[in-house]
Amino acid sequence: MSPQQPMTAPTLDEVAVAAGVSRSTASRAINGGEKVSPEAQAAVDAAVARLGYTPNRAARSLVTRRTGSIALVIPEPDGRVLADPFLAGTLRGMSQALEPTDLQLVLLIDRPGHHSDRIVRYLRGGHVDGAIIASHHAGDDLEVAVRGLPAVFIGRPYVATEGILYVDVDNVAGSRMAAERLVAAGRRRIATITGPSDMGVAQDRVEGWRAALTAAGLDADLSADGDFTLTGGALAMQDLLARDPEIDGVFAASDLMAQGAMRVLQTAGRSVPRDVSVVGFDDLGIAASTAPALTTIRNPVEEMVRTAADVLLDDLEGRGRATRPVLFSAQLVERASV
Amino acid sequence: MSPQQPMTAPTLDEVAVAAGVSRSTASRAINGGEKVSPEAQAAVDAAVARLGYTPNRAARSLVTRRTGSIALVIPEPDGRVLADPFLAGTLRGMSQALEPTDLQLVLLIDRPGHHSDRIVRYLRGGHVDGAIIASHHAGDDLEVAVRGLPAVFIGRPYVATEGILYVDVDNVAGSRMAAERLVAAGRRRIATITGPSDMGVAQDRVEGWRAALTAAGLDADLSADGDFTLTGGALAMQDLLARDPEIDGVFAASDLMAQGAMRVLQTAGRSVPRDVSVVGFDDLGIAASTAPALTTIRNPVEEMVRTAADVLLDDLEGRGRATRPVLFSAQLVERASV
Repeated sequence: MSPQQPMTAPTLDEVAVAAGVSRSTASRAINGGEKVSPEAQAAVDAAVARLGYTPNRAARSLVTRRTGSIALVIPEPDGRVLADPFLAGTLRGMSQALEPTDLQLVLLIDRPGHHSDRIVRYLRGGHVDGAIIASHHAGDDLEVAVRGLPAVFIGRPYVATEGILYVDVDNVAGSRMAAERLVAAGRRRIATITGPSDMGVAQDRVEGWRAALTAAGLDADLSADGDFTLTGGALAMQDLLARDPEIDGVFAASDLMAQGAMRVLQTAGRSVPRDVSVVGFDDLGIAASTAPALTTIRNPVEEMVRTAADVLLDDLEGRGRATRPVLFSAQLVERASV
Repeated sequence: MSPQQPMTAPTLDEVAVAAGVSRSTASRAINGGEKVSPEAQAAVDAAVARLGYTPNRAARSLVTRRTGSIALVIPEPDGRVLADPFLAGTLRGMSQALEPTDLQLVLLIDRPGHHSDRIVRYLRGGHVDGAIIASHHAGDDLEVAVRGLPAVFIGRPYVATEGILYVDVDNVAGSRMAAERLVAAGRRRIATITGPSDMGVAQDRVEGWRAALTAAGLDADLSADGDFTLTGGALAMQDLLARDPEIDGVFAASDLMAQGAMRVLQTAGRSVPRDVSVVGFDDLGIAASTAPALTTIRNPVEEMVRTAADVLLDDLEGRGRATRPVLFSAQLVERASV
């Protein structure tokens, strides 16, 4: 606490007096700066800083809306944002959610190699009123960047952090369902192709697969790291086939990876599903167009994003702050790959 | 000019005295706020506003870099940004251009129906240091929004505005080349499917088509409005066929529209190119995968975007300001649709 700061919370009237402006000018300057001269704005800003003034909840909600924008943060390079149906669906859902509002969508993406410090700096610079964060990775500091900024994550953050809200599909139950479907089809050597190991959703999908295999008395030893891309899925499948040519079931943690894996299986002379059954995760378009069409777990991305946006808007507009994550249930979609 | 403002330009020393801080603190506060207390920052901001202080060119360049970000503005809804190869290429080129810099990419897109007032407000709010604008339409006020903000347009603005920089392909020469190719193939009833009539590049592509037909002594009466989408191209082709079933050549102002037009022609029993020759514009991926593969005009989007970014970065970093548009030459790419 600086020496100038009084021990009791300063009032708007005290700010107005210190700034040498009227109460209504001080209020307008604090609540967004409409019709306030630069001189008065600067004087009020100086008084707010000097007195340590914190507007009350309703006023703060107006203050935090001063940029008129919400960030959608996807810390992935442009190639992934454009090619990945889950990330494209995130952008689509977010656009829909903001449609009836007056808020501008600000999309912040990363460059290859995850240098999210630029995103962190931008978020902390006060250029957006709130943020929705998708595809968060451990160590990207986004959970730190949004401290003090209304924010909702899509997908469980890697580390549970007090006060961080998220919306997710039940990844553990979904991937358990996927692996159980393979067990029910009589498969015994069931591998998984995982998402990036620094993502909470990827961890959860491994956990569900492992639980199903353990419950069925099967070994859960065939796991290969993918990265949620087509190429990553193909490379992981090559690795798995080299480790155990007897593989007869694969759960891939995304449809894109499942598509890559099926191509490798078919090139290696394995018929899907006669020799090897495959289940994906997402059900966002490509699952219906692969050959054979992919049995998968439905990931309700647009609903999740709209829910995340609703939670965020409620917070921004002072209608209340959610305190618990929202979890959507997973659903098996049967097609022709099992 | 406010009464407090002195008649001679105030100096940094005067700002420091008025703010009650040292010259170096005033300089840091003006040049980006690193290691400046909120109180000192506010006092300097107030003094700058009161005295009407304008930093010199080099200092101003640092000031304008205080957000550490560049906007890529695409005033189109998410569906078009994701589906249109030109717009996706713009995002890709922009990511590449900013790769070696420390700048965050801020993508601002619109919602259906062009309500770009939110984008305008965001740009004017000081949340970015500069902007690249693609797919600008007449009336979207983006040329107004970027007054005072370093900015470069991709594609000629609809109305020539003093001081607005742009990078473009030579659309007139390119579309003239496209139509001349159709004339050279012996086609005589040559239609065009245009881009949105409120876009400069769309106007230029009509002009080139008209010039080639006029020079060949042919009627330039068969023009139908498209909107740069697959569906728009299909609808325009239906309209054109209804107006003149004898059409034997089509120049579509984008490859996506050409693809839509070819589908309609084939459904109507016309073989491409035996009955009708088609030339597109863009050469960005889909042209090679249509059936038949599309003869088109190459639109060097990634080079254009990188050039636009270079021009912008030169301006931001005080290395000089370009004063003339940069025009890339157009190039005919022959495939199988003529």
